[in-house]
Amino acid sequence: MVFIDRLIERIIEVKNPSVVGLDTNIDFVPKGIREACDDEFGVGAKSDAEAVYRFNCGIIDHICDIAPAVKPQIAFYELFGSYGAEAFIKTAVYARDSGMLVIADAKRGDIGTTAAAYADAFLGGAYYADALTVNPYLGIDGVLPFIQNCVKNEKGIFVLVKTSNPSSGDFQDLDLSMGKKVYEHIADKVGEWALGEGLMGTYGYSSVCAVVGATYPEQAKALRERIKKIFFLVPGYGAQGGGGADAAAAFDASGLGAVVNASRSVLCAWSHERWGGRYTHGDYAVAAREETLRMRAEINRAIGATG
Amino acid sequence: MVFIDRLIERIIEVKNPSVVGLDTNIDFVPKGIREACDDEFGVGAKSDAEAVYRFNCGIIDHICDIAPAVKPQIAFYELFGSYGAEAFIKTAVYARDSGMLVIADAKRGDIGTTAAAYADAFLGGAYYADALTVNPYLGIDGVLPFIQNCVKNEKGIFVLVKTSNPSSGDFQDLDLSMGKKVYEHIADKVGEWALGEGLMGTYGYSSVCAVVGATYPEQAKALRERIKKIFFLVPGYGAQGGGGADAAAAFDASGLGAVVNASRSVLCAWSHERWGGRYTHGDYAVAAREETLRMRAEINRAIGATG
Repeated sequence: MVFIDRLIERIIEVKNPSVVGLDTNIDFVPKGIREACDDEFGVGAKSDAEAVYRFNCGIIDHICDIAPAVKPQIAFYELFGSYGAEAFIKTAVYARDSGMLVIADAKRGDIGTTAAAYADAFLGGAYYADALTVNPYLGIDGVLPFIQNCVKNEKGIFVLVKTSNPSSGDFQDLDLSMGKKVYEHIADKVGEWALGEGLMGTYGYSSVCAVVGATYPEQAKALRERIKKIFFLVPGYGAQGGGGADAAAAFDASGLGAVVNASRSVLCAWSHERWGGRYTHGDYAVAAREETLRMRAEINRAIGATG
Repeated sequence: MVFIDRLIERIIEVKNPSVVGLDTNIDFVPKGIREACDDEFGVGAKSDAEAVYRFNCGIIDHICDIAPAVKPQIAFYELFGSYGAEAFIKTAVYARDSGMLVIADAKRGDIGTTAAAYADAFLGGAYYADALTVNPYLGIDGVLPFIQNCVKNEKGIFVLVKTSNPSSGDFQDLDLSMGKKVYEHIADKVGEWALGEGLMGTYGYSSVCAVVGATYPEQAKALRERIKKIFFLVPGYGAQGGGGADAAAAFDASGLGAVVNASRSVLCAWSHERWGGRYTHGDYAVAAREETLRMRAEINRAIGATG
């Protein structure tokens, strides 16, 4: 089954169009887990990487029945060198074994043979991802090897179109003399690439998808109209400031067409004032489940779905 | 000493403004090395990663006195998961211990806290790089954490401005309504970022550098005039089709201002018809030295320097 259908069916099954970003900063990990790892492996990168992995397992255990996918952000693993790569891979395998899809957030992009190597690494084997975020700045021959891999291995990509960060407009929002903005032109190209053979699923969406930030709801709404067959990954919800109504702009009239990502607001949910001190750091996974349920309800309410 | 001065002094010392790209495809590695690794580690990713590392050591041993830096391309290491990360890191350490600088070609780029984690991983510790290639599509807050790390740790970055691949024009060459092309605008921004405190070296160049492909010599020449304080990394020489005269466009009148990269043409030099069958695959490192010397002479001739 093509990636996009696997994702959408899992979204329908758990009634949740939101995913949890495993941007696991070592500071998010409770002291108890860190000390146990230090005792076992000695203080250092190996212990920290294992602590991140164990933290992630706690999160996955508590959300795998109510969220369709996790999105580990690889920068936080690369910090620990080869131990970090191992923690990333073990996290991906654990999530997959728990029934979740894995969207590797690595924003890769390079020229021909190099892009093919990245695609093989993430979508073909070593990193066990179902989908990968991709940076389009190098043009079509930086993206095509990923698309070919999507077809061959029934995987997906999310091409950066309009990112959620404050300065995303620096280059993405520039006006082109052809009468549209840079990100609109990239969106149009993604819209073309997405139509290739072996990519379209039964819900009308392609496995070639786009990243469109929740922090720019007007642009998201316009993009939703502009590229109707493109499924969106929507970062920026939660800690970055986007709310349910902002995220809703990325969805179609039937409540499909996007998944919203939240990272810090779930991973650090235990400390949020919302819960009035009910949770300690040691309860992080229980609190993450509470927050995932709250987010699910908020987004479903905003897009007019039930769940 | 700031990164850019370390690089330029090493270039002057070895009389060579070209670096060797360690885009080590496992197929480049001679059978003897691969079989020895298979015997020791069993067939699989661990053996392949070790074979890549041993191949790299052979290259480094034969070029460390005649080339200032290596530029390992991380995609070819990520193929082997955590073993690949280890091979990348061991290669970087080996190059550094051999007196070479290490430019990690990973084209990272992400938002604030994530970019800071990438910067820490590559420029702060785990990956032992002296400099990193960076993708600017997310705007200044995707680049600033790297720049801050350059100042703190005396490291460098090479921001993608005009890449060497055939489709680099898809987005980079688009005309902006403000009257310049996308890559020109990005070049101008890099030119501004490069002036920050703690970045400028004694040769008039900044540790915030740019990637400008040898396959577009006219654009390189214009960019050389446009952003005079920006040092260029020039991919596309050799296997991608750029020659000495093309690469020369990126240099200033005094023969400084750029380093040219060659990867496959050096790593696979043994098989080039130029040598008329003089070398076997087992001689790859000796042939790589020959090709590095040939390239050094060609580029120095083209820029009017001796060496």
